[in-house]
Amino acid sequence: MARPSAPAVRDVLLMATPSKNADLRWFGGFHASDPFPAFSVKGRKVGLLPGMEVGRAREESAFDEVLNLTAVIADLRKSNPQAGVADAIVFAALQRGVHRFRVPADFPVGLYERLRALGLALHPVGAQQNERGAPEVFPQRLVKSQAELAGIRAGNAAAAAGFQAVERLLAEAEVGQKGLLRWQGKILTAEILKEEAQVAILRRGGLCDIGLIIAPGDQAVDCHCSGSGPVRANELIVCDIYPRHVASQQYGDMTRTYLKGKANARQRKMVLAVLEAQRRAIKAIKAGVTGAKVHTVVQEYFKSLGYVTGLKKGAYVGFFHGTGHGLGYDIHEDPALSTRNPRPLVVGNAVTVEPGLYYPGLGGCRFEDCVVVTKKGSEFLSAHPYDWEIA
Amino acid sequence: MARPSAPAVRDVLLMATPSKNADLRWFGGFHASDPFPAFSVKGRKVGLLPGMEVGRAREESAFDEVLNLTAVIADLRKSNPQAGVADAIVFAALQRGVHRFRVPADFPVGLYERLRALGLALHPVGAQQNERGAPEVFPQRLVKSQAELAGIRAGNAAAAAGFQAVERLLAEAEVGQKGLLRWQGKILTAEILKEEAQVAILRRGGLCDIGLIIAPGDQAVDCHCSGSGPVRANELIVCDIYPRHVASQQYGDMTRTYLKGKANARQRKMVLAVLEAQRRAIKAIKAGVTGAKVHTVVQEYFKSLGYVTGLKKGAYVGFFHGTGHGLGYDIHEDPALSTRNPRPLVVGNAVTVEPGLYYPGLGGCRFEDCVVVTKKGSEFLSAHPYDWEIA
Repeated sequence: MARPSAPAVRDVLLMATPSKNADLRWFGGFHASDPFPAFSVKGRKVGLLPGMEVGRAREESAFDEVLNLTAVIADLRKSNPQAGVADAIVFAALQRGVHRFRVPADFPVGLYERLRALGLALHPVGAQQNERGAPEVFPQRLVKSQAELAGIRAGNAAAAAGFQAVERLLAEAEVGQKGLLRWQGKILTAEILKEEAQVAILRRGGLCDIGLIIAPGDQAVDCHCSGSGPVRANELIVCDIYPRHVASQQYGDMTRTYLKGKANARQRKMVLAVLEAQRRAIKAIKAGVTGAKVHTVVQEYFKSLGYVTGLKKGAYVGFFHGTGHGLGYDIHEDPALSTRNPRPLVVGNAVTVEPGLYYPGLGGCRFEDCVVVTKKGSEFLSAHPYDWEIA
Repeated sequence: MARPSAPAVRDVLLMATPSKNADLRWFGGFHASDPFPAFSVKGRKVGLLPGMEVGRAREESAFDEVLNLTAVIADLRKSNPQAGVADAIVFAALQRGVHRFRVPADFPVGLYERLRALGLALHPVGAQQNERGAPEVFPQRLVKSQAELAGIRAGNAAAAAGFQAVERLLAEAEVGQKGLLRWQGKILTAEILKEEAQVAILRRGGLCDIGLIIAPGDQAVDCHCSGSGPVRANELIVCDIYPRHVASQQYGDMTRTYLKGKANARQRKMVLAVLEAQRRAIKAIKAGVTGAKVHTVVQEYFKSLGYVTGLKKGAYVGFFHGTGHGLGYDIHEDPALSTRNPRPLVVGNAVTVEPGLYYPGLGGCRFEDCVVVTKKGSEFLSAHPYDWEIA
């Protein structure tokens, strides 16, 4: 919740590393691997960049004004030898007539305390709990531009190249002793599948900068387990690929589940249930519908088929994660398609739709695509077949 | 500077996403792409993980105790429907008899304010200016363990695989019209070199998660320009590769400079000057020597050869960056080998050594290796030849 005084303050101050902070990537459109401050003044974007970055920032960034932070600090040190980044921010802000800023909930506290001691009025806004960044600072970030949607599509095209690699290896693999798969003379492992997928993704302009999941058998029941070791015939393999499209800085996020060999009746029933749940969730999405409502559609469908969700021997089974999440500059953004999101979706939200079911002994199954919310429904931002049984 | 009361407080509280925060990677040894809190109590490490992550965290992490954050919040909501992450942290801390924590300077301000309102005493420590994270919270993080050094070596072995790919392509390339290089029927670009280098790095267990630099000609004069477009014969090409070794989460960081064809006298003189500067800097490193002193060795050597450093037509020329920086869980850590580090190096510090020279018209040249500081000198953490002229 924003403080009572916050609505009057329009200008925003950030201090972050673009490679680690989606707000600053969105705000500044500039890639750097060290932190720097940036703020808005009456709609103008100001970046304070280290001297070494100034030339590149003036050429490449979305800042209306790029100040040389190194030079400002050097100037200030003529009268105050202790001057640092905080003093430079205060100087640049006051020079532009601003002394109050909103800051995101993940603003660094050290600088926050220092700036307040120097007289700036700072108003933290956004998710106080820091569960999903601070969308309240830039709510417009959750309504995607055409360029951002194109970036998400490109991220998903890279993910699809990864699935093609996985499918090729599974098709080429032979079933060896004890059902272990063999490929090019070796036992086929999750690690090999990940390496080949990542190479294919890289060659399509994507980068799995926070990893990828290729989890065979019961490993997938822990739905964030990234997967390792041998892959066997006739077991479900969950492949969740979420590459960043490097040129646009947008994430893609897709999941496919495979099985090499022949599925049994329970596996087949579960896969078809998840595919149908995904179809129903996507059908439920349109502007005005809440994230919670979409999630309920999936929950109720699984329940109607007799798939139980809950704790079993201390581990979650069934459908125990959200139906989806926003994505773009960050892999996990608002809006969530889950119980905790009572707010209606709006036109331009980009979300994943990823129902799944997980039971020890049977394994996991998840299918995930991305859509953009429209007035009457949604449009796909991802495209790849659902052929899951590989001979 | 720590507050006067800080030294009495030993316990540390973190709230961060491991994939974005080196302190938490070091503290928790657990990979996750969403934020969670963790704290220490009398030397014991406690992690508060979302229910979905608890099983994996108990198996894989370095936490002595893993609490189910989801379950704690659900319990608290029975009496307080508004309870969230902050309430869960306070509950878990008080239950363990702690109500004061040090927090790093980059601790998120939203949660900081909420925790203080709930009665926790929080003491921000570390770099108030946030220029280089918060080493003061975990100073022991800058003294590397044998496993961490092995990880940095592995990161550098991946980088070396990248250089081998670049060298292979440059050797295979032919000089075409206007000095443009051609490879496999196409004009050879920085993008092609980056792609082939990244594939080689991936296959060696590395990931260029924050990019890489392959900057031909004058592009390299902006030493953070990542490089693009055609590569020409007889121009210097700066290749700076800093992959994360995925298994150990440690970064490597190396630079080589190449030239396809035949160097002219000025290019050759500059390359040999940088190589000699690097040799002298490495020779100067040992426990007890300050980072600033090592940097001075390079500055004075370049000056003695007549290489001028300063602003020329608004851009920096000469040797305008630090001689090196610490690395490990993060790509840029303390200690710095630069003017701003008056503190002595200690045994176990891992640092890059990367002098460079940059002049428009002549181009850039940088060579970078990593060493670990020992009592009497240093040992290399990187290994790759310096053959820079490729026929």
